Amino acid sequence: MTSVDRWQLPDGVEEVLPQQAAAAERLRRQLLDLYRSWGYQLVIPPLVEFTESLLIGLGADLDLLTFKMTDQLSGRSLGVRADITPQVARIDAHSLGQEGVTRLCYAGSILHTRPRTPTGSRSPIQLGAELYGDDSLAADVEIIRLMLATLASAGLSDITLDLGHVGVYGAVLEAAALEQEQEDAVFDALQRKSRPDLELALAGADEATRELILSLLELHGDETVLTRARELFGERAPRALAAIEALQDVATDICRQRPDVAIYFDLAELRGYHYHTGIVFAAYVPGHGQALANGGRYNDVGKVFGRARPATGFATDLKALMALLPAEETGRGAISMPDSDDPALLDRVNALRAAGEVVINCLSGVPDPRCDRELVEREGEWDLQSLTIDQATS
Amino acid sequence: MTSVDRWQLPDGVEEVLPQQAAAAERLRRQLLDLYRSWGYQLVIPPLVEFTESLLIGLGADLDLLTFKMTDQLSGRSLGVRADITPQVARIDAHSLGQEGVTRLCYAGSILHTRPRTPTGSRSPIQLGAELYGDDSLAADVEIIRLMLATLASAGLSDITLDLGHVGVYGAVLEAAALEQEQEDAVFDALQRKSRPDLELALAGADEATRELILSLLELHGDETVLTRARELFGERAPRALAAIEALQDVATDICRQRPDVAIYFDLAELRGYHYHTGIVFAAYVPGHGQALANGGRYNDVGKVFGRARPATGFATDLKALMALLPAEETGRGAISMPDSDDPALLDRVNALRAAGEVVINCLSGVPDPRCDRELVEREGEWDLQSLTIDQATS
Repeated sequence: MTSVDRWQLPDGVEEVLPQQAAAAERLRRQLLDLYRSWGYQLVIPPLVEFTESLLIGLGADLDLLTFKMTDQLSGRSLGVRADITPQVARIDAHSLGQEGVTRLCYAGSILHTRPRTPTGSRSPIQLGAELYGDDSLAADVEIIRLMLATLASAGLSDITLDLGHVGVYGAVLEAAALEQEQEDAVFDALQRKSRPDLELALAGADEATRELILSLLELHGDETVLTRARELFGERAPRALAAIEALQDVATDICRQRPDVAIYFDLAELRGYHYHTGIVFAAYVPGHGQALANGGRYNDVGKVFGRARPATGFATDLKALMALLPAEETGRGAISMPDSDDPALLDRVNALRAAGEVVINCLSGVPDPRCDRELVEREGEWDLQSLTIDQATS
Repeated sequence: MTSVDRWQLPDGVEEVLPQQAAAAERLRRQLLDLYRSWGYQLVIPPLVEFTESLLIGLGADLDLLTFKMTDQLSGRSLGVRADITPQVARIDAHSLGQEGVTRLCYAGSILHTRPRTPTGSRSPIQLGAELYGDDSLAADVEIIRLMLATLASAGLSDITLDLGHVGVYGAVLEAAALEQEQEDAVFDALQRKSRPDLELALAGADEATRELILSLLELHGDETVLTRARELFGERAPRALAAIEALQDVATDICRQRPDVAIYFDLAELRGYHYHTGIVFAAYVPGHGQALANGGRYNDVGKVFGRARPATGFATDLKALMALLPAEETGRGAISMPDSDDPALLDRVNALRAAGEVVINCLSGVPDPRCDRELVEREGEWDLQSLTIDQATS
């Protein structure tokens, strides 16, 4: 076993070193304080659960992303959480079991067997908020606002909000009435936004159906998308209209409070189609291809835990946010103290530390290089005086 | 699959619900701020690493405690960390690679295949601090003081500090010059503090050796233990004297600053004997059988990562500390706001939230039960008025 083998980290598994870690901790606190101030209560679900508690239909890929191990105490399969959302749903449905609206938030490490994107992390720090017990659009709007406030709190601007609604595709599919096999091929092609594959998948369908479904590929962009969708689907897939109105209402609400946010509609957005039940959303910033935060409505979660509940929520990755933070100065600024037991010194040090100063014991006679001041005794009093760089780095 | 199967948590794997989670988060921040103020820099090591990076000789039981999985990307074995100390040692030795004294701290979830004690957790939240690059007793004293400050910060008093030194047993063993097999039997019996087993293990040894080793069983208690040890070992195991002097010095130093802490010496303390290299310590409070925090010197850690370094440190479990915190009141005190877009309302709400208030959107017309005040419009102004309990819980 060489040293190199030992100090290597697995691909996509990162450590966070002091400078970045301090920034991450600051942002983590800022965001949890934000969620608290909106009435979202913190919960701390465990790192592992029985695998069947984690795989409750929230995304088919979650199974493949989840590391599994055998529990030596029960012989059952344990999963390391690949997503905290199912855990919070369990807490709402079973552990808390409250009637009415329940608002919860969380922050914790998750683990993926493989990165979700080629350059993605396998060990994100997931932060998020979930709102249970309210099926109104107002709840979705609250969650989207909190997601936007999260990005603002991280100092990000130029945000684009992608909005979709699984009800649009659902209505179109219902109107098309395809065979299951064809439906699967269509879904697959649409998800990859591939026109050639979609045309192939639609071979044999009648012209009206072809047109209807192919039109979804073009239905992304600004608000004019909603107008076109109303025209296209008004007669042939009228159940899509309610979803289109919902998108319109949410966009209007968000726009009123956050005119700085660009809204982008995508009616063929199928991420999470099999478990989302309403509005879906994601936030992007320029120069960062992946969504920085995303979420949506996923009603009836909790059913597997014995209590179906309306639910909407979002999640983000602290490590991804951190990577976009402006670099901080290293900042000297600590105070060196001699390694002495003088009670007057200790009183002074305790007061300085309580006031937020960093005071570092000078163990070997060489002050820590982070120190720019030191405590010096003068006639029984301990005074702060500046430390020359020579002293600090010698 | 029944709901019960899904909502059950594995034995020894706990979730933390809102009331406790808020207290845990507060304590976590308080402790990380404490460590920061002493000059300890936060690092965030990952949840998993290659197994051989985690098992670097810091405790033989760590291998059995570590959950292992196969990395799909490399085919190598991954371990879920059962202890954060080896990760921080890797960071000091390799990732940072600084000369001189390096002070690091951390807070994160760990996982054990089995509980360490019958009622123990398998998913503690480990917090700790490590000091690298200084081999002096002053460094051990700094770490012990920080451990005691940790317990004080958690509001704990009546603390007993157990002190030991692996050099005492080492010197006695050297003087006894037993065969390896007998040495192992003696170690095992001593670790379990079993006199009958120890007598059995010493069968065949000469009387002087028997006496010398059996005396270890009695060498626990107050400072008189050190006096007795000096008499017993002065001639027959003189290398023990340096360890006894070190214990005396550390105790004197700690006592001067913390006369409220009871010091208990245990010269047969063998916890971590195979990797500790000097002073070992643990802190107890009345009514709690397990140590709340412990640590010791473990020099030469980092060697497997290519750089041997003196090291001393301690760790504690946030969940164990939390369990001893006094119960908090549930505390109503939030403010209800109507679900309105009025800019004057939103300004008021932003200001209240920034000032630390919890303001909860009233989605369904029923204020959240945590609210005791509400925002009400009067002539274009948004005023706070108290909410009667009837309104809040109706």
